Amino acid sequence: MSNHINPIYKSIKRKRSLPETSRLLQNLTNGDKVALSQAITLIESEQPKHQSIVEDLVTHCLPLSGNSLRIGITGVPGVGKSTFIEAFGNFLISQGKKIAVLAVDPSSSVTGGSILGDKTRMHSLVNHKNAYIRPTASGTSLGGVARKTRESIILCEASGYDVILVETVGVGQSETAVHGMTDFFLLLKLAGAGDELQGIKRGIIEMADAILINKADGDNIKPAQRARVEFTKALHLYPVKANGWSPKVKCVSALQTEGIGKVWEMIKSFVEQTKSNGFFDKNRFNQQKYWLTESLDTKLKRSFYNKPIIKAKLSTYLNDIEHQKISSFKAADELYEIYLQALRGQ
Amino acid sequence: MSNHINPIYKSIKRKRSLPETSRLLQNLTNGDKVALSQAITLIESEQPKHQSIVEDLVTHCLPLSGNSLRIGITGVPGVGKSTFIEAFGNFLISQGKKIAVLAVDPSSSVTGGSILGDKTRMHSLVNHKNAYIRPTASGTSLGGVARKTRESIILCEASGYDVILVETVGVGQSETAVHGMTDFFLLLKLAGAGDELQGIKRGIIEMADAILINKADGDNIKPAQRARVEFTKALHLYPVKANGWSPKVKCVSALQTEGIGKVWEMIKSFVEQTKSNGFFDKNRFNQQKYWLTESLDTKLKRSFYNKPIIKAKLSTYLNDIEHQKISSFKAADELYEIYLQALRGQ
Repeated sequence: MSNHINPIYKSIKRKRSLPETSRLLQNLTNGDKVALSQAITLIESEQPKHQSIVEDLVTHCLPLSGNSLRIGITGVPGVGKSTFIEAFGNFLISQGKKIAVLAVDPSSSVTGGSILGDKTRMHSLVNHKNAYIRPTASGTSLGGVARKTRESIILCEASGYDVILVETVGVGQSETAVHGMTDFFLLLKLAGAGDELQGIKRGIIEMADAILINKADGDNIKPAQRARVEFTKALHLYPVKANGWSPKVKCVSALQTEGIGKVWEMIKSFVEQTKSNGFFDKNRFNQQKYWLTESLDTKLKRSFYNKPIIKAKLSTYLNDIEHQKISSFKAADELYEIYLQALRGQ
Repeated sequence: MSNHINPIYKSIKRKRSLPETSRLLQNLTNGDKVALSQAITLIESEQPKHQSIVEDLVTHCLPLSGNSLRIGITGVPGVGKSTFIEAFGNFLISQGKKIAVLAVDPSSSVTGGSILGDKTRMHSLVNHKNAYIRPTASGTSLGGVARKTRESIILCEASGYDVILVETVGVGQSETAVHGMTDFFLLLKLAGAGDELQGIKRGIIEMADAILINKADGDNIKPAQRARVEFTKALHLYPVKANGWSPKVKCVSALQTEGIGKVWEMIKSFVEQTKSNGFFDKNRFNQQKYWLTESLDTKLKRSFYNKPIIKAKLSTYLNDIEHQKISSFKAADELYEIYLQALRGQ
């Protein structure tokens, strides 16, 4: 891999007071975890001088990425995500894989520290040479966090990681974001008191490619099996997905590593099915298109709503709308005209 | 009502070769169906010279609108929407109401004619003086059709109609649009073979304020009651809505008008509940805000994607993204920069 890189990284300019970007890239692509960490730290940096380095890194890593499997994992705090990831990660390593664990949790600054990717909870994994664990990307907007996570995935893949696990606690729209950057989306649940689907955020069930009922051990085995039946019935009611995959429900006990092997078998059959019917690659391209249009939408809207004159006029218009002095559509026409004039005036 | 209008409509300028707009407005607000039809035809017209007339009409009707109840009705073709609307409409008229029936069906030009609002299917209703039935608004985009339907609602309400029924066959995103312009959303279903929720479009169940199992008569009574149990269980699993309303499931037989009165009682209790807890008005204001931002989004995106240079460059960028030469985010950065330059250049 390093021979392939040579002609490319010689063209990267040296940046003052930072590790040679070319050396960083070489080490990263050779599987050096320290280099990977430094690179991801640059991705997370808000400093403008780092952004052009990141652009270079991502551009050079892109052709080397894409050959891994990206698995999204969501579930409420307490459901046992860390323990599951520990067990699943160790299993994958025993199968000869290199795994990376990333997180999407835009609220981590609010909750005062990383909930996810908590290294102290995945003690055997964090020390394994074939595992890389990265606490949550920080950021002020979900869009910003999603971008950083996607760029981190690219770097991890260029660094040789076969399976990328992306976890989220499910704050705001983070599941939608994680679903939009992974190939397979896992929902972890616990067996409840029979009210299995109560309170689940709208749309999560439909996103899931599989639901895992966790902590299916000891006294909890029967409730877990009942929950499995309930969820299977619920999933059965939804239309089959375009890729032909019928979401599965499985019981697992991360503490006892039972069922973990079956989870991997299921995911492998998903990959086989969707690669042979073309949906695996189709989904990835759709995701890339989605992030393109999402980014453009965000830029267009930010440009509009941040214009001082729009900020000044918006609440007046909303008030007039509420008091039936103007229709929403006419208000939109007028605000847009004001915006165009403001653009021309610049 | 006409005295209230006098000072207002005298200010409307006369347009050449069209009915006096002021007379149109006066007749419309006096309940004249011909005037209402002419006005809605102007709304549907794509001719620019009609658009300023429409703006005047809508502006003057707005203060007179808002006092009606707007009910959205969806269901697949064959479920019996027309027969239900006929029965429900006649019942409402017997209660002293004036009702209008509108439709949202952007694909009508594709299907070669109106499926909805088909006057031939609602024979007793179409001839009643207290009913107004308008076949689907035509249009090339859902946004355009939604706008026209909302403006038609305003005119119908200014014309004295107490209950506005808006139907849709559920093509594309039309349910979302109808849900976004009504107070209460009815999903009509038929009893199936036990697979009640199979095949229902994602999100429709969650939008419904009530599900009506239609054709619950004769041999179909027991299957309908079983379907009712299934749907009730399914609805129960979702989180309670913010307005405190728990969606209901009822059996109806539009052919035998059984249960129609109970449907109206249910809707009235919904209105009472949500007016007293403030959500009725809150929902209407949220809808108005939604259409404001939807319209602005559409204008911003149209301006972007219609720029010749963007059209020219977009497919190249998509190709580069697919072949991992550039990330979606960097492509968005560059395309946006190109757009800004194009704007400045004008």
